[in-house]
Amino acid sequence: MRLLSFLNCGQGRLGIELDNDLVFDANRACLAFLEQQGEPFAQRLADALLPSHALAFLQGGTKSLGQAHKVLEFVQGQVQVNEVLPDYVFQASAIKRLAPIPNPQKIVCVGRNYHDHVAEMKRDVPTIPVLFAKLGNTVCGHQADIPFPRVSDQFDYEAELAVVIGKKGRYIAVDEAMSYVAGYTAMNDITVRDWQHRTPQWLQGKSFDNSGPMGPVLITADEILDPHQLDIQLWLNGELRQSDNTRHLIFDIPALVSFISQVMTLEPGDVIATGTPGGVGVAMQPQGFMKIGDVVRIEIEKIGVLENHIVAP
Amino acid sequence: MRLLSFLNCGQGRLGIELDNDLVFDANRACLAFLEQQGEPFAQRLADALLPSHALAFLQGGTKSLGQAHKVLEFVQGQVQVNEVLPDYVFQASAIKRLAPIPNPQKIVCVGRNYHDHVAEMKRDVPTIPVLFAKLGNTVCGHQADIPFPRVSDQFDYEAELAVVIGKKGRYIAVDEAMSYVAGYTAMNDITVRDWQHRTPQWLQGKSFDNSGPMGPVLITADEILDPHQLDIQLWLNGELRQSDNTRHLIFDIPALVSFISQVMTLEPGDVIATGTPGGVGVAMQPQGFMKIGDVVRIEIEKIGVLENHIVAP
Repeated sequence: MRLLSFLNCGQGRLGIELDNDLVFDANRACLAFLEQQGEPFAQRLADALLPSHALAFLQGGTKSLGQAHKVLEFVQGQVQVNEVLPDYVFQASAIKRLAPIPNPQKIVCVGRNYHDHVAEMKRDVPTIPVLFAKLGNTVCGHQADIPFPRVSDQFDYEAELAVVIGKKGRYIAVDEAMSYVAGYTAMNDITVRDWQHRTPQWLQGKSFDNSGPMGPVLITADEILDPHQLDIQLWLNGELRQSDNTRHLIFDIPALVSFISQVMTLEPGDVIATGTPGGVGVAMQPQGFMKIGDVVRIEIEKIGVLENHIVAP
Repeated sequence: MRLLSFLNCGQGRLGIELDNDLVFDANRACLAFLEQQGEPFAQRLADALLPSHALAFLQGGTKSLGQAHKVLEFVQGQVQVNEVLPDYVFQASAIKRLAPIPNPQKIVCVGRNYHDHVAEMKRDVPTIPVLFAKLGNTVCGHQADIPFPRVSDQFDYEAELAVVIGKKGRYIAVDEAMSYVAGYTAMNDITVRDWQHRTPQWLQGKSFDNSGPMGPVLITADEILDPHQLDIQLWLNGELRQSDNTRHLIFDIPALVSFISQVMTLEPGDVIATGTPGGVGVAMQPQGFMKIGDVVRIEIEKIGVLENHIVAP
């Protein structure tokens, strides 16, 4: 299933993609489904089973996911039999997307996790995952504007596969780690390169506003049999800058989930950004940073396209 | 005013300290105050003016703070005239405290910000603030149990003055920075020392569960004329380990608020941990880390005592 969050009447709502460039509001469709079944208290039940926020949905685990599958089937039927679209169905091009999880409680990023990137940055291959954070102010979605910083012109991109946690866990064993994964999305770990490196800690280069766009969807784990066989690419203004495959991750997803859970309790909605392949702007000769007016586009196989525009601060 | 958060019937509630070791539930007292005035819709009005969560309260800015002062006066009167305490007043010793802000959206920490600590860690005095993050799973309150990690025995303490933001801002000028500060609390930036230093990034040593206790209160900025003249001390099992004064901060509070706001939009409830003085366990000879059963106690002048117990994992 392809989950998303979008803005409707000023509020973030959980949506599900249909074929034919359509999207529906999961909670409102669930209400229609339950009303059709004659359920009393249909709104309260819909709010419990298929809540309108992605984080609450993930907290509902397999129960909410099962309900979502039933409602998806119901909506597919409604769209087929009705000439006019139900009022909870939208054209995908007409909605404003948020990040699939608009308010993740944690964003844990992994540095130096593809061989080509380690080589271009002239670092040693890590024997222990290198973790750092992006903060909540970095979160935005597909087609969001990314403000160019006032304080630097070294504004760099980093295409990454992001893993979203679906189940609470601590001290997770490697061979059980995949059962804690709700799904996957694409993320651009945008980095102000000189600010990243002018002190020993990277945070100040990694947490500029809107510097962590994610999207376009959270594809559920059941739809990606092997997340370590996905092409990942990034274009800046149509020029291919990064092109690799997730099979080249140094620490794979089970290793990362297990490792991070030795430090902290992972919770539904937590995001793990798995690191970027080679091809970042700072490593080019001459260096190829982003500038105002640029369009940066990431595509990850099966997940789709995450595109953002760099705008004046 | 001395604000706190505490647990009542399983829910976090905003409280305010009275003299005589009493605490009252701010929202419930506001309701009683408004009902006594004959206000219609008193509960809805109380929820708007003096909400039960600290983050919502801070978002209410000076309006909520003004209402809190009125309600504090009302409760002081009620406590004086009634022999039996109103049901929204509690003995301070009987409540379970949470962190004053139980769910800060960001915790930005400053490393190497006291000369003595820089010297004991054998580092250079920074010319730019060194920023790193603690994640939301680290947040807990006064008297919370801190689980000893399973994966290390280098469990270290760091007494810190923490600043809580009260107003949204970006690109804040140094001379306006103090107007963005809601108040202050004490924080123990508990650190798994070997995990902090075994990769270039500190996050994995800084984000163990419950490793960021805060409290006992958020004292509002109006009650601390000069936050750069506060004694700060830490005892481990009664042994004084850290003792300094905030006048020795390398980057002071206006400098930090302004600097951090060059990177990110600061929001009400965001926490800035200003760094720790000398005396950490790793720098002692022999090293003096915390172990299971220890009691770690921080006292900051005017703020009070933050005490926590180290327990088995």
